[in-house]
Amino acid sequence: MNDWFVVRFEVDSGEVVLLDQRRLPGEVHYLRCGTLDQVADGIRDMVVRGAPAIGLTAAYGMVMHARQELDSGERSDASTFLVTLGAVGKALNATRPTAVNLSWAVARMARKASEVASLDPKSRYQAMLGEARAMHQEDAQACHTMGKLGAEDVPEGATVLTHCNAGALATGGYGTALGVIRAAHEAGKNIRVLACETRPYLQGARLTAWELHQDGIPVEVICDNMAGHLMSRGEVQFVVVGADRVAANGDVANKVGTYSHAVLANHHGIPFTVAAPWSTVDVRTATGSDIEIEQRPPDEVARCGDRIVVPQGVPCRHPAFDVTPANFIDALYTDRGRFEPKGGWVLPG
Amino acid sequence: MNDWFVVRFEVDSGEVVLLDQRRLPGEVHYLRCGTLDQVADGIRDMVVRGAPAIGLTAAYGMVMHARQELDSGERSDASTFLVTLGAVGKALNATRPTAVNLSWAVARMARKASEVASLDPKSRYQAMLGEARAMHQEDAQACHTMGKLGAEDVPEGATVLTHCNAGALATGGYGTALGVIRAAHEAGKNIRVLACETRPYLQGARLTAWELHQDGIPVEVICDNMAGHLMSRGEVQFVVVGADRVAANGDVANKVGTYSHAVLANHHGIPFTVAAPWSTVDVRTATGSDIEIEQRPPDEVARCGDRIVVPQGVPCRHPAFDVTPANFIDALYTDRGRFEPKGGWVLPG
Repeated sequence: MNDWFVVRFEVDSGEVVLLDQRRLPGEVHYLRCGTLDQVADGIRDMVVRGAPAIGLTAAYGMVMHARQELDSGERSDASTFLVTLGAVGKALNATRPTAVNLSWAVARMARKASEVASLDPKSRYQAMLGEARAMHQEDAQACHTMGKLGAEDVPEGATVLTHCNAGALATGGYGTALGVIRAAHEAGKNIRVLACETRPYLQGARLTAWELHQDGIPVEVICDNMAGHLMSRGEVQFVVVGADRVAANGDVANKVGTYSHAVLANHHGIPFTVAAPWSTVDVRTATGSDIEIEQRPPDEVARCGDRIVVPQGVPCRHPAFDVTPANFIDALYTDRGRFEPKGGWVLPG
Repeated sequence: MNDWFVVRFEVDSGEVVLLDQRRLPGEVHYLRCGTLDQVADGIRDMVVRGAPAIGLTAAYGMVMHARQELDSGERSDASTFLVTLGAVGKALNATRPTAVNLSWAVARMARKASEVASLDPKSRYQAMLGEARAMHQEDAQACHTMGKLGAEDVPEGATVLTHCNAGALATGGYGTALGVIRAAHEAGKNIRVLACETRPYLQGARLTAWELHQDGIPVEVICDNMAGHLMSRGEVQFVVVGADRVAANGDVANKVGTYSHAVLANHHGIPFTVAAPWSTVDVRTATGSDIEIEQRPPDEVARCGDRIVVPQGVPCRHPAFDVTPANFIDALYTDRGRFEPKGGWVLPG
C-alpha cells in the first residue's frame, strides 16, 4: 500500500483533502478544502487531475455539501436539498469540460441524493458518503480488472510507452494504463516503461515516474518528441494510455500528445491500447468530434518549471486534450471487458 | 538588420565572441572566448547551436589559433603550423557528432591553412580570417537563396509549423527554415507560424519565437505534443525544418521530434519540407542509419527551466536528433536548388 492518498473525505473536519499533485515529486503536501469553491479550484487548477480522480473529488465535494447542512443544524426539505445539491454538482461539473467521469460522478451522486432526499440530514450525509466511498472502491477495483486484461497483451520483455499519468494518482487506486503496467509487472513479465514527460504539466516526468519508481518498476523519462524516434529504432513494443472520454464510436479523448503517439505507433506496427473504466465511456457522445477539447491558459505553455521561456508578446496555444480515432486503437481495456475499436467497435448494451 | 550577432571574430582582442543563446530570450549576453577550450565548450554546452552556426564558430576558433601564433611572435614552420592547427580542428570537430557542417567547416579551414602554411604568421592569420568570413557571408547568402526557393511552395495564408530553431540564430544569418518563412513573409504572403517549443532546450519557444516576433511575423508557441492534434484539425498547411546532416540518399538528421512531425504531416497530407545549405549534405554518409545520433546528458531532460522535475533515481534518455527518411520529405531547399527526396533523390554531381 502507498503511504499517500489522492483524495479523501475527512469525517472529523468535514473537509475534502487533496494531495497537491502540482508539488510532486518534490513534496507530498495535502490541500484541505473546506468550501465548495476550494474543491472546484482544486479540480480547475489541477491540484487533483486524471479523469476518475476528478470524478471522485467532485463526489466528495457533494458529500461535503450534505455534511455542511448537517453541521448547520437546519434541516432543508427534500426539494430544497436537491436544488442546492444540484447547484453544487453543476458548479463542480463546470470546472473541466473534457473528462466525462466528472459529469458521470456528479450524476451518480445526484441519483443517490434523490433516493435519500426525504431522510434527515444525518442519514442523507451518511448515504452520500457511503456512495462516494463505494465509487472510490469500485474505481480501484475496475483498475485491477482492466489491468489484468491488458497485462495479457503486454509482451514479455516489452518496453511499454505511456503518456501523461493514468496511474494511482489519477484514479481511485492502481491506475488505468499504469494498472496494465503494474499487472504485467506483478505477473512476472520483465517489462520496462518509457514515460513521456507530457508538457506542459509534466505529469509523466513528475507523477508516472514517481509512482512506478516507488513500485520498483523500471522507468525512464523521455521528452514527448522522442517517442517517434525510439519507435523507429525498435525500442518500443507496446503503448498504453488512459482516457478522459470514450465516444460511442470508440474514439478516445486523452491528454494532448496521445494522438501523435497513436499515429506513430500505428505507423510502426506497435500495439496502441487504452485502459479506462466504463465510467469513461459516454454513450451520449457519438464521435470524437463531439468532445469538447479544453483550452487551458496559454501561460501554462509559456512557463517551463518556474521560468517564463516564451518571449513577451508572443502568444501560446494550449489545447489540453486530443482525440484518437477508434481505428488507431488496437485494444480498449475496461472493467466490462476488452474491446477492439480498430476492428469495429460495437458498444455493449 | 538585427542589432545582435551570433558569432564574430573580434580582431582587436583576438577573441571569438558568442551570443549566449542559453540566456535568450531573457537576456542578450555575449560570451568572450579567448582559448580553444572556451570555444569548444561554447559549442558543446550549446552557447551556440544550429548546424551552420557551429561550423562558423569552429572556423573562427581555427582563426584564433593562427592569431595566437601571430601574437606570440614565434613563427612555426609550415608543417608544425598544420599539425597544431589540425589538432585544433580535431578538438573542435569532436564537440558534437551529428551536424556535418562542423567537420565541413573544419575541413575547409584546413584546406585554406594548407594553401598558406608557407607564408608568414600575419599572412596566415589574415587568410584564415578571410576564409572564415567568406564562409559566414556565403552561408547567409545560401539562406537567402534557399529561402526564396522554399517561399514559392508556401501557400498564401498558410499556417507554417516549424521545429527547433533553424533561423538567423542557427546560421550565418536569415536562417534556413526561418529563411523560407522570412522570404514568404517578405514576398507578401499572409502567413503565420506555429513554433514547436522543442524540449528539452526549448529552442522553438525561446529562439524561433524571439527571432520571428522581432521581424513582425505572427508566431505562436505550442508544445511539441500538440502538433499532431493541430494537424488533425486542419490548422497546419506547411511544415519546414532545418537539418544537421543530409545523407547521400536524402535521409535527414535534425533535432529530435522532427521525425514525428514528418510522419504526422505525411499522414495528414501536409507538405513536409527541409531547408539546408549544401554544406549540410554529406555524400560520405550513405543513409540516415549511418548518422551518429548525439546522446546528450540525461539531466537536460530531467530539468525544466530551473527546476528538476524527474524524481531522484529515475533515469532519463536524451537522444538529441532523429532521422527522417527521404520518402517523408516533399522538398529539400538548398543553395544548389530544390530537390524532392520523396520522389527519388539523385545527388547532383
